[in-house]
Amino acid sequence: MPHHAFQLTIAELQAVIDRNPFNVWMGLQVTTMGSDGIGLRVSGRPEFIGTAALQRVHGGIISSLVDVACGYAVMANTGHGVSTVDLHTDFHRGADLGVLHVSGQLIHRGNRLNCAQARITDGLGVLIASGRGNFYSSRDVLPEVAARLQESPSGPAPVQRE
Amino acid sequence: MPHHAFQLTIAELQAVIDRNPFNVWMGLQVTTMGSDGIGLRVSGRPEFIGTAALQRVHGGIISSLVDVACGYAVMANTGHGVSTVDLHTDFHRGADLGVLHVSGQLIHRGNRLNCAQARITDGLGVLIASGRGNFYSSRDVLPEVAARLQESPSGPAPVQRE
Amino acid sequence: MPHHAFQLTIAELQAVIDRNPFNVWMGLQVTTMGSDGIGLRVSGRPEFIGTAALQRVHGGIISSLVDVACGYAVMANTGHGVSTVDLHTDFHRGADLGVLHVSGQLIHRGNRLNCAQARITDGLGVLIASGRGNFYSSRDVLPEVAARLQESPSGPAPVQRE
Amino acid sequence: MPHHAFQLTIAELQAVIDRNPFNVWMGLQVTTMGSDGIGLRVSGRPEFIGTAALQRVHGGIISSLVDVACGYAVMANTGHGVSTVDLHTDFHRGADLGVLHVSGQLIHRGNRLNCAQARITDGLGVLIASGRGNFYSSRDVLPEVAARLQESPSGPAPVQRE
Repeated sequence: MPHHAFQLTIAELQAVIDRNPFNVWMGLQVTTMGSDGIGLRVSGRPEFIGTAALQRVHGGIISSLVDVACGYAVMANTGHGVSTVDLHTDFHRGADLGVLHVSGQLIHRGNRLNCAQARITDGLGVLIASGRGNFYSSRDVLPEVAARLQESPSGPAPVQRE
Repeated sequence: MPHHAFQLTIAELQAVIDRNPFNVWMGLQVTTMGSDGIGLRVSGRPEFIGTAALQRVHGGIISSLVDVACGYAVMANTGHGVSTVDLHTDFHRGADLGVLHVSGQLIHRGNRLNCAQARITDGLGVLIASGRGNFYSSRDVLPEVAARLQESPSGPAPVQRE
Repeated sequence: MPHHAFQLTIAELQAVIDRNPFNVWMGLQVTTMGSDGIGLRVSGRPEFIGTAALQRVHGGIISSLVDVACGYAVMANTGHGVSTVDLHTDFHRGADLGVLHVSGQLIHRGNRLNCAQARITDGLGVLIASGRGNFYSSRDVLPEVAARLQESPSGPAPVQRE
Repeated sequence: MPHHAFQLTIAELQAVIDRNPFNVWMGLQVTTMGSDGIGLRVSGRPEFIGTAALQRVHGGIISSLVDVACGYAVMANTGHGVSTVDLHTDFHRGADLGVLHVSGQLIHRGNRLNCAQARITDGLGVLIASGRGNFYSSRDVLPEVAARLQESPSGPAPVQRE
């Protein structure tokens, strides 16, 4: 299935991510980019703590990481901005404050609706949470890739202009 | 159905919420508490922004609000701490930065597994998002209510000690 | 919010439902139709059983009832066919074989994406399951209401013709 | 991580499946069993049709297949019966009546709460739907494997007897 031909570079995706204040606050760093999806990491910050007595990361932060990993996995393969339609997170274990790794993977690319999944592991590789979501593609190409796409007619064309 | 007899007060729930750094960072304020659930509000802060170009609140913040509204709706009716098992959020409209109201409502109280739902509206009452989740009850009573529960034998007994 | 002005009748919705073999096999009967949503019931059949030892209704049947209650709640308010984008079901209690009641309620009507929720109770009114889903509206009006809608210019116009 | 040492055989899983009327009605056949999960197939039957005009399989059948693939992936690795806590299905394409393949894979094995995911493809290998769910393990070992487990002390012990 050659339909994932288009791909953002790590630097392009980091630039897209850094445009948005909540991403910067979380400290999202792009670590990998490939045909099997994207990898992100965060170092953690004290405000991530949700359960002070246990020093556990808040479920809202975990869900936020699933959201960005899925959403940017879609963007990385399409070059179009997305908005989240729905997001589902399953919490497998409590996460201590520290490095978290998040991988995101495109499951299905539709005309406008795309589906992706994510996994979160801690610094030891232990699975913390996993999830999935549907994302609606904007018709607008990301400004970071607009120039490149104009040069390359094999870019993110599959989003149908209705 | 008289099974929601126990209920935290607004002050007790606010104290539980303020123990946790991410809640404090989000600025969660308890506004209502009743047999039909709980109400929370946040004023918003610049770091909530997820889409800088549109000045829209990040989906991760929206999911975090669904998580806390559902989780605290369970706690408010049980007096026990909870951990999130799974969380589902549907995003209906983009939210501008500003006041957001979140209501949380217990759907089902089980022996250890509880289900709750939430709705988020903006300052004009427009529905932004809604969602639901399952929450596992700890056997430990919240310290904020331990004294009250010892005096009242009709407290959060329904969590079976297996 | 007067945006739910359009509504199928019970007979129209029953006709829409009876066009589809799996609905007929399940024995879906429309019981109520109003501004707060739709009501369906099934009497149950032996093939519904998922756990023979316990004589419990299969989770797939429960999910199917959430799907139809949500999807037809959208159709009843729009007059357009829908396809399910995603479906989430929470299972609160096992259901014995017998009458099940399902209510479906529109949460959000969008341009093409709609969200609805459902609750399933048994013959004694005990909550069995609840859930929600997103549904994509077809541009085609249901044939059952096409004639009525032509006469009434206030019909299901809100679906934008892009 | 050697914690998936235990595994049902194809014949054992088929026997567990065939105890339950709705599974038999759907025509579930176990095709594969391995460390990467289980495979099931159905041939389809006319009652599966949900959209008569399009001859498309009903979303409730699709959800039922996600439920069984996830639930039996958990059982196959634990030897314990399960009940579904929650189920989420994303629908990627309409499915024509005909052979459907479903794979189920354990994501997380907890003390009592387990998480699994599923993918449904049609006879041509095209992805139709995918999903996930949480499943609560019964303390009771499946009768099909009770004898084998008594002989093997390395069986499904990890379910803690509280």
